[in-house]
Parts: sequence; C-alpha cells; structure tokens
Amino acid sequence: MITLLTDFGWQDGYVGVMKGVIWGINPNVQIVDLSHDIAPQDIDAAAFVLKISYPYFPKDTVHVVVVDPGVGSERQILGVKTEAGYFLAPDNGVLKYIFDELPRCQVISINQRRFFLSEVSQTFHGRDIFAPVAAHLSKGENFYNLGSPTKAFFKGTVWHPTRNKSSIEGRIIYVDRFGNLISNISKRLFDDVTKRRTFVIQVGKWQLEQVIGSFVQGGKEHFLAYFDSSGFLGFSFYGANAQQKTGLKVGEPVRVTVN
Amino acid sequence: MITLLTDFGWQDGYVGVMKGVIWGINPNVQIVDLSHDIAPQDIDAAAFVLKISYPYFPKDTVHVVVVDPGVGSERQILGVKTEAGYFLAPDNGVLKYIFDELPRCQVISINQRRFFLSEVSQTFHGRDIFAPVAAHLSKGENFYNLGSPTKAFFKGTVWHPTRNKSSIEGRIIYVDRFGNLISNISKRLFDDVTKRRTFVIQVGKWQLEQVIGSFVQGGKEHFLAYFDSSGFLGFSFYGANAQQKTGLKVGEPVRVTVN
Amino acid sequence: MITLLTDFGWQDGYVGVMKGVIWGINPNVQIVDLSHDIAPQDIDAAAFVLKISYPYFPKDTVHVVVVDPGVGSERQILGVKTEAGYFLAPDNGVLKYIFDELPRCQVISINQRRFFLSEVSQTFHGRDIFAPVAAHLSKGENFYNLGSPTKAFFKGTVWHPTRNKSSIEGRIIYVDRFGNLISNISKRLFDDVTKRRTFVIQVGKWQLEQVIGSFVQGGKEHFLAYFDSSGFLGFSFYGANAQQKTGLKVGEPVRVTVN
Repeated sequence: MITLLTDFGWQDGYVGVMKGVIWGINPNVQIVDLSHDIAPQDIDAAAFVLKISYPYFPKDTVHVVVVDPGVGSERQILGVKTEAGYFLAPDNGVLKYIFDELPRCQVISINQRRFFLSEVSQTFHGRDIFAPVAAHLSKGENFYNLGSPTKAFFKGTVWHPTRNKSSIEGRIIYVDRFGNLISNISKRLFDDVTKRRTFVIQVGKWQLEQVIGSFVQGGKEHFLAYFDSSGFLGFSFYGANAQQKTGLKVGEPVRVTVN
Repeated sequence: MITLLTDFGWQDGYVGVMKGVIWGINPNVQIVDLSHDIAPQDIDAAAFVLKISYPYFPKDTVHVVVVDPGVGSERQILGVKTEAGYFLAPDNGVLKYIFDELPRCQVISINQRRFFLSEVSQTFHGRDIFAPVAAHLSKGENFYNLGSPTKAFFKGTVWHPTRNKSSIEGRIIYVDRFGNLISNISKRLFDDVTKRRTFVIQVGKWQLEQVIGSFVQGGKEHFLAYFDSSGFLGFSFYGANAQQKTGLKVGEPVRVTVN
Repeated sequence: MITLLTDFGWQDGYVGVMKGVIWGINPNVQIVDLSHDIAPQDIDAAAFVLKISYPYFPKDTVHVVVVDPGVGSERQILGVKTEAGYFLAPDNGVLKYIFDELPRCQVISINQRRFFLSEVSQTFHGRDIFAPVAAHLSKGENFYNLGSPTKAFFKGTVWHPTRNKSSIEGRIIYVDRFGNLISNISKRLFDDVTKRRTFVIQVGKWQLEQVIGSFVQGGKEHFLAYFDSSGFLGFSFYGANAQQKTGLKVGEPVRVTVN
C-alpha cells in the first residue's frame, strides 16, 4: 500500500498524475490519499497528519509526503525504514514525529536515478521522483538500493510537553478543518499528572475545569476541552469554529495545573 | 465494494485512515468515496446523497455513512441489510430514505466489540468501529454476527409530496454544490398529475410555466425548472447559483397546479 | 485504467456514482481521479489538465472527460483512439490538445445504446453514458463497436506561439490553484530562440530578464518566471498568488524578445 500526503490540492491533476506513474510501474498496489489539502508549504501540519495516521496502516506501507517548499533546490529526499512502514519525504522536518517516535529507523538519501522518471523537472518531484521510487519500493525493490545511508539530515523540532509534579506545560500543535485546536498533551500524561484530582486548564484567556467525554455533552457555543481521536487534549466550540472564535494558533501555550 | 459518506472533509487525513483500517482487514475490497464534503453534521444532506447514489452500486455493496453529531454519546450504530446492499450508520435518521424505500430491511444494533479496533475513541468511530465492521462484512462475515436485531431505532422523517387531483405540494429537500434546488416531486408523479396539460409551478415568489428539457435551452440568468439526474423536479439559474440568487432553502414549499 | 476529469466537485456524490457504475461492469479496472474541481464548464482548463496529464498514463488507459455545458442537447459524445490511450468526451473542444498533438487519432461518435445505462437522464451523462461506455472499453470491448466513425466534430482552437527570428509571442493558457500563470511557450522553443543570449520577457506591465531555476531562488513577494513541471514558461509570486497580485488572465499575451 502507498499513501500520499501533499499540499497539491485536487484541482490541477497533479495527484492523478502521480497515481498514473505509480500504477504504470506497480499496477497491483493500493493507493490511499491521506490528504492533499495541507495548506501550501505547511510542513508542521503535514507532520501532524502523518503522525496520527501512520499507526493505522499495515507495516509494509510506503508513506509518501510531498510538502516541499525547497523543490528544485539541493535539498535531499529522504527514505526512512521503520518497524511501522517506509517513509519518503523531502529533508525539511516533515518526518519529525517519525524520527521522534521510531528512533531505530534507518535513513537513506534517495539518489539512484534509475528509479526516477527519465526526465526530472525542477518543480514536480512528486511525479518524477517520489511516485516512481515509491512504486518500485512497494513492488519489492530493496530499500537500500534506492539511495545511500545518511546521518546528515534535519530531524525537525518536536515540542514535547513539560511535566512538573502538579502541572503540565504544552502547546497547540494542530488546527483541524473544524477549527478544533489540538495540543501535544496526551490523555496518558494528563491522567498521570492529575490523578483524578481537580485541575484547571489554561489556554489563552480561557480557563477550563473539566474535560468532556463527548461533544454531545458540551451544549452549544461553549468553549470546551476534550480528548481528540488520537488521545490528545483538544479545544473546541460545540457547533462553531474554535480557532475563529478564540484567535488561538499553533504554538499557543497550554497549561494544566492540579489544584 | 465499500462506499464512504462522511462530513470529515479531506484535510485532516481521517478518510485516509479509515481506508488504512479497511484495507488492513480486507485488502481486496474496492472503496468508493461517495462524498466527504457533506456540510458538518448535515444529516439531511447526507441522507439525500445516499438516496440518489445507492441504486447505482452492486447489491452486495456496504454503504458506510458517518455523519454523526452524537458520536461518543449512547446513540446506537445501526446495521441494515436490504435487497440493494448493506448500510452502516449512526441511529440519527441519516438512513431515512433507506427505511422508506426498502421497508423489508433487517436492522441490527452493532455491538460486537470483537469486530472493532481494540481501542475505541470517544470521537472517531469512523476509524474505530465503522471501518473495521464494514471491512469484516465485505470480507464475508455474517451480517447477524455483527450485532443484535432491533426495532428500537429512529426512522427519520421523509417529506412525501401531497398529491391532489390537480395539484402537488412538495418541498425543496436538497441544494447541490452548484446551488441547484432539488424538490421531492418526481417526474413520474409530475407527469401523472399534469397529464400533459398546462401548469404553474410556484416556489417562493417565482412562478414557472414550463420544465425545460436541458440546461442549454435555458439561456443565461433565468430561473428555470428541470428534472434532475435522479428524476426530481429541480430549480436552477443557467450560469448562476440558484440558491444565492433566490435565497430559497431546504424545506421551502413547491406547489404544482394544473390549470 | 480509467481516469476521470470533471467539474462535478466532490460534494454531491456524482463522482462516486460513476465509480459504482464502472466497477459494477468491470470490477478489476483501476480508476484515477484526475480532477473534479475544474471550474464549472471551464472547457479550456479541463483541456489543459488533460494535456499535461495523459502522457504519464499507460497507453491503454481510458481518459474520460465530462466538462459538458451542452449535456442534454444534441451535442455528440466523441470516442478517440490514439497511440497514447483512449479518450471519451463531449464534442466541445475539450480534446483540442489531443487532436493537435496526436493527429493520427481515430474518432467515433458514441451512439451504441446497448453500452449505456438502460435509462439515460437529460443531465447526468457521466453516469448514464460515459461511465458504462468507459467500463466496457476498459474491459476489452472493441473501440469501433461503441459508435460510428466521424469527421464532423469540433477540433477546438489551440493557441500556438508565434516564433520570429529573435522573439516569441505566446499567451497565458492556464492558471493553477496557486495562482501561477502558465503560458504556451515551451522550454524547448524558448531555448531554441534565445540561444543563451540575454532576453526580456514581457507579460502585462511586467518585464523579466531571467527565468529562475527553482522557487527557492526566488525570494519572497517577487514576480518571477520559471519553467513549470510540464516544461512551459510560467509566472509566479514566491509565497503569494500571482493571478491575484497581477490581475493577469488566460489569453494574456506573453512576449519574449532577445536583446
């Protein structure tokens, strides 16, 4: 299986062309569109979507990420082999959560042109490099034949929450299409620190004293905290767009304090 | 074959994750995206898209609908077996046209956790319940093993047009992405009542005395009536957005009167 | 393989229904969405997306184009057999680049109703004609059984650049979703005329004296020329939307003059 995660949108046919190239090489592979609506060049958003998605795919899946402001420059293309699948992406930090969560991974710099299309453009490596390399890998080509092992790559910066005895300091790391604000504080960490005691969550000018179990309990037009589908503390307005209502953005501090 | 109909949008990777789960269980099933751009929580719109789509799929298709404002609450998930395919959906009326058009259907409440993912979140049953249950069903699992027969579910409310001797009273039931307004008055009913006599169609402040055969006949910027691709009386502006031009909405009465 | 290129959007389920029809007839064919976000009835945009995409697909692919303002009128549906694949499209010029680039093609008027759905609507030939005909063709049906050879069809108008001894006159022919403006001047023609000499490119009120190698070299908020992924001279703002910034449109003249 191959997944595709890009900022190409659907309008111009670029995603379709990548599939034509892939299926021209390996007609039997399944292709999943993870997202093509990442905001242009939003590396952090793509990194987060990949983080919450890859665990649900088979362990031999090839995950292709093309959010690539540096296309056409000298930036490397990385191939990463992990116990949870393969990853192909530009060397720009978009794999930061992979390096963080799967530290035993093997990294190569993709450079074997015999697996590329015969003509490589300056602006569409998704078609000319990523698609054919992914297709060959999914077809059984040995990972190490695709490039050269490297330790010189950009790992990116993962914001880990700070854990104190009776507080946690985290940040908003993603905003979904409903405007929900997702933090980097996991339910596991939250439960570990709060230990069923009362607490206050502070984000922006808001203070919340409970985490709801489901949106239905939230009522209309109230700001509320919940655990999202990947187990992270999130913030929402039931029936409205939390980002628009609050103006909060990625990077905003979130503090949980036990009373 | 499995179809997916949700309000998840394409941005956040949720649809892709559902496919990863499905193909992890049944790698050979085909997956069709019916729509993921249903307006958030618009149960009636999803119901209509399903209504006009399911007749064109093979009779063993599993149709999965996840427009689910009540996710995380105690609402049931329904499984429905019909002569036109299987349906999985929350118990919120989104299957109203199925119950109306296929009254001999069998209904179960999905509750066999061995077919769910091992961890079930509060907010993403599409991934944790719908996807794996659909995959098992498409793979040949017996429908009745997935849950318990039930008669306690919400059938929803279908607006049927009222037929009088020389008039029909219906309503707008859907607005498509071009802004076309689709009513619940079928061509069959229309022809049956009007019997090739002259008529007046009234909707909002508009009165129309003909139904055009194709958009090409309509000219530019005129409000017009037509029969849509599913055979329902619809209203359009050739070259413009009828909803924006008229302000008419779902629920608006439509009256056909024979002269 | 079948590709689909339409202006249907994703919201209303129309694309999904086409796939249901196709896979109901030929369950083994792969289907690629080329684009469904062509602006409504924008025949030229669809023609361009097809032009830059078809070369990357296997030679037995069936390319289906349904951008069809004339649906329901007497316009023909064309079937075209070429050395680069099959094409099905309304007779409205959307295949203009195919006729221009593959002049040895065979053209038929699709008229064998036994390959259509049994009921053909006035407004959704994508479902009722294009999908089943494409499915039968992909399944091995002889191309010439689908209709009758014809020479009476609309070839459309391709704007070819004018080549002078020391200048080229072309036009903008496409605007992509990032607002990049793509001309009909190929890199090959450009290099042939400029022969590494200095030059001036004029488009609208802008004058440019270089073509950058990649976006990274461009800096922020500068208007710049580049060669796009299909080898055409394009214009962009690094980090902004060139169409919105410049107001330039399809049809705008582009002139390259060697000094």
